[in-house]
Amino acid sequence: MSNVVIEWLTSQFGERVLTDQDSLEHYGKDWTKKYTPAPTAIVFPKTTEEVQALVRYANEQKLALVPSGGRTGLSGGAVAANGEIVVAFDKMNNIIDFDAGDRLVQCQAGVITEQLQRFAEDNDLYYPVDFASAGSSQIGGNLSTNAGGIKVIRWGMSRDWVSGLTVVTGKGDILELNRGLVKNNTGYDLKQLFIAGEGTLGFITEATMRLTRKPKNLQVMVLGLSHFDNVMDVLKTFSKTIEITAFEFFSHQAMSHVLAHGGVAAPFAEDAPYYALLEYEVVSEAVEEEAMAQFEQAVEAGWVVDGVVSQSEAQAASLWRLREGISESIAPHTPYKNDIAVRPSRVPEFLKRIDEVVSAEYPDFEIIWFGHIGDGNLHLNILKPVDLDKDTFFSRCERVNTMVFDIVKDCGGTISAEHGVGLLKQPYLPYSRSAEEIAYMRAIKAAFDPNNVMNPGKLLAAGEAV
Amino acid sequence: MSNVVIEWLTSQFGERVLTDQDSLEHYGKDWTKKYTPAPTAIVFPKTTEEVQALVRYANEQKLALVPSGGRTGLSGGAVAANGEIVVAFDKMNNIIDFDAGDRLVQCQAGVITEQLQRFAEDNDLYYPVDFASAGSSQIGGNLSTNAGGIKVIRWGMSRDWVSGLTVVTGKGDILELNRGLVKNNTGYDLKQLFIAGEGTLGFITEATMRLTRKPKNLQVMVLGLSHFDNVMDVLKTFSKTIEITAFEFFSHQAMSHVLAHGGVAAPFAEDAPYYALLEYEVVSEAVEEEAMAQFEQAVEAGWVVDGVVSQSEAQAASLWRLREGISESIAPHTPYKNDIAVRPSRVPEFLKRIDEVVSAEYPDFEIIWFGHIGDGNLHLNILKPVDLDKDTFFSRCERVNTMVFDIVKDCGGTISAEHGVGLLKQPYLPYSRSAEEIAYMRAIKAAFDPNNVMNPGKLLAAGEAV
Repeated sequence: MSNVVIEWLTSQFGERVLTDQDSLEHYGKDWTKKYTPAPTAIVFPKTTEEVQALVRYANEQKLALVPSGGRTGLSGGAVAANGEIVVAFDKMNNIIDFDAGDRLVQCQAGVITEQLQRFAEDNDLYYPVDFASAGSSQIGGNLSTNAGGIKVIRWGMSRDWVSGLTVVTGKGDILELNRGLVKNNTGYDLKQLFIAGEGTLGFITEATMRLTRKPKNLQVMVLGLSHFDNVMDVLKTFSKTIEITAFEFFSHQAMSHVLAHGGVAAPFAEDAPYYALLEYEVVSEAVEEEAMAQFEQAVEAGWVVDGVVSQSEAQAASLWRLREGISESIAPHTPYKNDIAVRPSRVPEFLKRIDEVVSAEYPDFEIIWFGHIGDGNLHLNILKPVDLDKDTFFSRCERVNTMVFDIVKDCGGTISAEHGVGLLKQPYLPYSRSAEEIAYMRAIKAAFDPNNVMNPGKLLAAGEAV
Repeated sequence: MSNVVIEWLTSQFGERVLTDQDSLEHYGKDWTKKYTPAPTAIVFPKTTEEVQALVRYANEQKLALVPSGGRTGLSGGAVAANGEIVVAFDKMNNIIDFDAGDRLVQCQAGVITEQLQRFAEDNDLYYPVDFASAGSSQIGGNLSTNAGGIKVIRWGMSRDWVSGLTVVTGKGDILELNRGLVKNNTGYDLKQLFIAGEGTLGFITEATMRLTRKPKNLQVMVLGLSHFDNVMDVLKTFSKTIEITAFEFFSHQAMSHVLAHGGVAAPFAEDAPYYALLEYEVVSEAVEEEAMAQFEQAVEAGWVVDGVVSQSEAQAASLWRLREGISESIAPHTPYKNDIAVRPSRVPEFLKRIDEVVSAEYPDFEIIWFGHIGDGNLHLNILKPVDLDKDTFFSRCERVNTMVFDIVKDCGGTISAEHGVGLLKQPYLPYSRSAEEIAYMRAIKAAFDPNNVMNPGKLLAAGEAV
């Protein structure tokens, strides 16, 4: 069976089919450490029509396809652990069209986030979606997981920048959805289903993305705070009069890892238990004055232990490294990641309740908190003790999952704010979506992908065997 | 049959059931003049659970339900012309919850747009979706048609302000979708299907809407222009350096009707064939200086014949009336409305081609152009000559529809930018959506509303009889 498939793939894609062991391992996984990659083959299409041919063949042969972008996902959405064919978008990395007046850029799915950001900058515009993995992640993957990141509070999620999508559905149809229009009220907005759809309804092959005005002068302020509640106080008062472009939070423990990793200095002589990083656009002197007035007020209120404001772009970048370096600096400790969110106003209660449970259950584990607190989004990272084996560590973490997710549910939150569901969160979906919602999702899946060939087992449980 | 139904309705809703002829006519239609209302009864639920009971009964009895908000729609989406039961949301007009920190307000579907705008203002915040019918239209209707309006260029469509929806699906399930979260990547974003879904999948009963910072000082500039291309020149150059909050266009003919209607003065001593209205937020003196510099440049370039800038809120409001008064002033002329859009960059070619066709086909009709040109959205209004009867007029207009829509299709545009499809545009849907897209829409409809009880015949052709 497998030989017949590989013969067909080779007849269609020639050298753009890989089956060597190294490639199978490399392209069969994402940044989730849990799964063992075991795809049958990796294919590199160059056009939407080639993707369509693949999907049609998969329907005929009842094969499973897994889409693969930059493989920076954290929920196993791009993992191929069951003999699937990986459809890698690396060779679909061209910018197809650009209109400066409409501020629209049409990309193939394999365009890398940073490539799009640079293209925008070269044209004196701005693509505001940004996160630590922007140098590897691809637009198709970003959209399939509705990537968020560090600028959501001002500029929203990836979803908010999509003006058109070309997709190949699970039935093998090519749909050109919305075609870059600002307004188009002609029925159900189908492109929304493919955004955050994790490739389970179809694969995104092209996207028309909106760009925006380049921010003029982004200033960064880092504050050391005594109590977590003060982080929320600062958020509340600053956002009343200043249009914040980012508001990030990290614990001292999180920052310690970045400092130990090297290349960046501690912001203050004295440590604080919590830190907040604010960014805002200095469109006028009045904004800068207002920010300084707010800062002084926060000091007087006793919220702030110490603070620093960037005086140059270089200094702003250096302050950002305190926050953006966290994921990389804790990666060697095999972190067990949770990406949870509630409404911002509920964050203090939420963090306190979870911290209590986690501290009680893992007295011997190091717990790292950071996140996009302005969006109510917290990253809870539990680090593996050096002397514990990976399987025992992960199974102990998973045991506490349901306790954490009970609190998430009770606080009206979500078990996945921006990482998606994939394989990792799939068993926990009912903590965030009702049985009725999941039933409608299944019906939609059946309409677009009746043979369950598109990324089966991700997001929704596998159901019937492929 | 009808008696049994009315008995059941009365047993459940008491005096909140109307069957008198005046009410049937009043609640059975929207602003579309074409259809003759003929509902069986009007029901006024007060809660989501009452709507659910109605939908379940409709499924048992195979009845058709039509949702009714402010009935300001222009595509017949809320018309009940076939013995349907009208579900009017007038008694579900409470603001349920508000959180100033999260900037979220939870409304029942019957809250009026202006009521929400005022609530936001009273809390020193802003709900930016605005249009001429804001005094009557309801949030549920706005969302079901994804209402746009005059501030889309800066603040987007209604869709962009939805943070949560409670809906009753056609199967009678209550879904609480997203619950006000900023980030929530846990599968298909089902709320997006109900936005612009025109009540065909389910009825929206509650919505959690985002509010934003109140703009500080909105200045309005009206320019008289010699050529249509200059409208686009002004849009292009101004939007490069100024964050425009509105950019509207109207012809001299459109403005003449507003002036004849009374209550507002001509902006200039000398007439111009075209006018542009710009609005922008004066966050600093620099913005005002930049706007004046742009204006002078536009005069030097020969684009602008004359111009006026508002010096007060009252003057800004008065200038806005030149644009916002158009619909009301032409209403007595029984206008045949088209609401079409292309990408902004294609507008000049698009308008020229359509104007040629329309002028050739209707040499005896008055044609009024205006619209949200910054979004590529044009309102083409054809006025009925006084001595022509309504039926002949409409049938002559419809004959040219396909010629107009051929151009729309050829320019990659849409046959309905913001008015929706309803009954009026339903036969023309294939000009904007492919056969495959429509097939997927039908499959989604079948999943949410298998008995076709929810607003049947709107958006999608009726198919099987109810």
